[in-house]
Amino acid sequence: MKIDDLPVRDELRGQSPYGAPQLDVPVQLNTNENPYQLPEPLVARIAERVAEAARNLNRYPDRDAVELRTELARYLTRTTGFERAPEQVWAANGSNEIIQQLLQTFGGPGRSALGFEPSYQMHELISRGTGTRWIAGPRRADFTIDVDAAVAALAEHRPDVLFICSPNNPTGTAVDAATVLALHDAAQAVKPTMVIVDEAYVEFSHRESLLPLLAGRPLLVVTRTMSKAFGAAGLRLGYLAADRAVVDAVQLVRLPYHLSAVTQATALACLEHTDTLLGYVERLKAERDRVVDALRALGLDVTDSDSNFIQFGTFEDQHAVWRAILDLGVLIRDNGVPGQLRVTAGTPAENDAFLDAVRTVTKEL
Amino acid sequence: MKIDDLPVRDELRGQSPYGAPQLDVPVQLNTNENPYQLPEPLVARIAERVAEAARNLNRYPDRDAVELRTELARYLTRTTGFERAPEQVWAANGSNEIIQQLLQTFGGPGRSALGFEPSYQMHELISRGTGTRWIAGPRRADFTIDVDAAVAALAEHRPDVLFICSPNNPTGTAVDAATVLALHDAAQAVKPTMVIVDEAYVEFSHRESLLPLLAGRPLLVVTRTMSKAFGAAGLRLGYLAADRAVVDAVQLVRLPYHLSAVTQATALACLEHTDTLLGYVERLKAERDRVVDALRALGLDVTDSDSNFIQFGTFEDQHAVWRAILDLGVLIRDNGVPGQLRVTAGTPAENDAFLDAVRTVTKEL
Repeated sequence: MKIDDLPVRDELRGQSPYGAPQLDVPVQLNTNENPYQLPEPLVARIAERVAEAARNLNRYPDRDAVELRTELARYLTRTTGFERAPEQVWAANGSNEIIQQLLQTFGGPGRSALGFEPSYQMHELISRGTGTRWIAGPRRADFTIDVDAAVAALAEHRPDVLFICSPNNPTGTAVDAATVLALHDAAQAVKPTMVIVDEAYVEFSHRESLLPLLAGRPLLVVTRTMSKAFGAAGLRLGYLAADRAVVDAVQLVRLPYHLSAVTQATALACLEHTDTLLGYVERLKAERDRVVDALRALGLDVTDSDSNFIQFGTFEDQHAVWRAILDLGVLIRDNGVPGQLRVTAGTPAENDAFLDAVRTVTKEL
Repeated sequence: MKIDDLPVRDELRGQSPYGAPQLDVPVQLNTNENPYQLPEPLVARIAERVAEAARNLNRYPDRDAVELRTELARYLTRTTGFERAPEQVWAANGSNEIIQQLLQTFGGPGRSALGFEPSYQMHELISRGTGTRWIAGPRRADFTIDVDAAVAALAEHRPDVLFICSPNNPTGTAVDAATVLALHDAAQAVKPTMVIVDEAYVEFSHRESLLPLLAGRPLLVVTRTMSKAFGAAGLRLGYLAADRAVVDAVQLVRLPYHLSAVTQATALACLEHTDTLLGYVERLKAERDRVVDALRALGLDVTDSDSNFIQFGTFEDQHAVWRAILDLGVLIRDNGVPGQLRVTAGTPAENDAFLDAVRTVTKEL
């Protein structure tokens, strides 16, 4: 029996599951993970809080994750200066689940979502998975958003949901507040549109968070994750900040008790160690800048990066370059952007290994 | 700003989130939780395994949860005598997410699902949430499934997905293998139909698991959970057993890395302590039978229970009785089944408190 022998939905026929290849390679710089393991005191605190939660594991978890949302709100308030209350924050199993809940609420059959490509591929995939029609919006050749072209696309396609990824994955491009405002206002001028600003990588940016734009804009949503800046990709904790009504609305589609007691306990432990973890972010930003400079010194085109990864090129056959770098023991990512590859900023040693590999490979080009 | 001021989907307007009231009452017998806390050696083992996982929390979790699926397959094989391989098992955040993935794959817009009501309300809610049309199938007055009426419903409605909940929530009714086979075959005779047997409570049944029916039936799926028999409602770990093609198919819709490293680690620790936890199940079965007998001795109608909960009545105004029992400090569940209430089997002391409350309240009726 094969998948296509089953009565699967037509649009799933012939597809394969999303996900980067998980290859066993010495240097893994392909999925924008934080290279720093959690410090031992935090590991111990996680064990302690999880043990506490495990004693009541026979009971369902707090369905509303109030303590966790309180601490996430406190984190946002502290790091952006823009006050958030727990009622304005919602959490789920990774920002993917956050996006899925938003699309189940505001997208779905008969509705559409627009994003500026190339961007985080899950925006499109989750749109399709929720029956939301996907519209590929334009970017300039330098991967920034052209406001005029974007406004024209909004007027033409009239999407129900607009994705703005800042910093953008896989290009690393941050979007400035003026652009977000222009797009938000242009969208609302056409029809009520949910504007989702995906800030998964914002802690690595040279720019401030776009969070304060939420003031007075109830159809604006900012999504975040603990996977990157908190070094907790394995935890699967995404969250959003928005008007309280948006938080109420996603609770109409969330699966009851979606967030386990161990996830809530682990996330709370990580939030206790915010300062240490943000220290690692500073180190990674410096390393990111060092790798950008080194790649440019090699004569490569490097897209300005506000993230913990770097897009570089331009290669005639980027997949051949990806493969040649892999053969030297360094796994990076070919996101399918013509001519471009993406590398995650790792530890200094990992970045050196990567740069050595690039030097070797580009010499042979 | 209210929910209805937002551009939410039409079908969400005026709705409220699903979930039993979470009230602070001395005796909570309303959500079919296992009353036994995890034993301390298991709590310690969870802390140990989670600490181990936390050291690599900066990395994404095993996307395919291979170790966990291996242990779940081993558990199924051991307890049913029917061999399952890891490739025939899939896990997610609660059986709700399992059901959602199945409906995203085999249901959705333009498709329909049928279940025999009253049954687990999430079958209907997740169907609606995934755009799958819901069809309420019939039951007899004694809450068993009438095969002739069911077969007629299948022929009339031609559903794409058929739910069979055994033991059924909220009635406690187990379905025998002959009935499942008759329904499965009748459904396939109409069109290829995914038949989902929800065995969330099967460890509490007087009957054997329906798992061996999977042999040679690639469109049959059995769903399970660690919430009940494993006493781990807070963990949110559901799973399914099915043909390998079904497991491959749900991976087309699962969110990548849906299952966190801490969830996988905690579930693995619980599976190491299976024998202890199944010992609690035996105690609960005995208590369940004692409560059934006591309620019948009071002259109440009690539906035969193969679960860790009991449906009883018949009351003219079951909600008034629910409220009166709550006023005596015992929280049970009014699932909206006319005349009927549902109580979870708790510890002997909790059950005594419940029976005392019922005696007091029924005296006043």
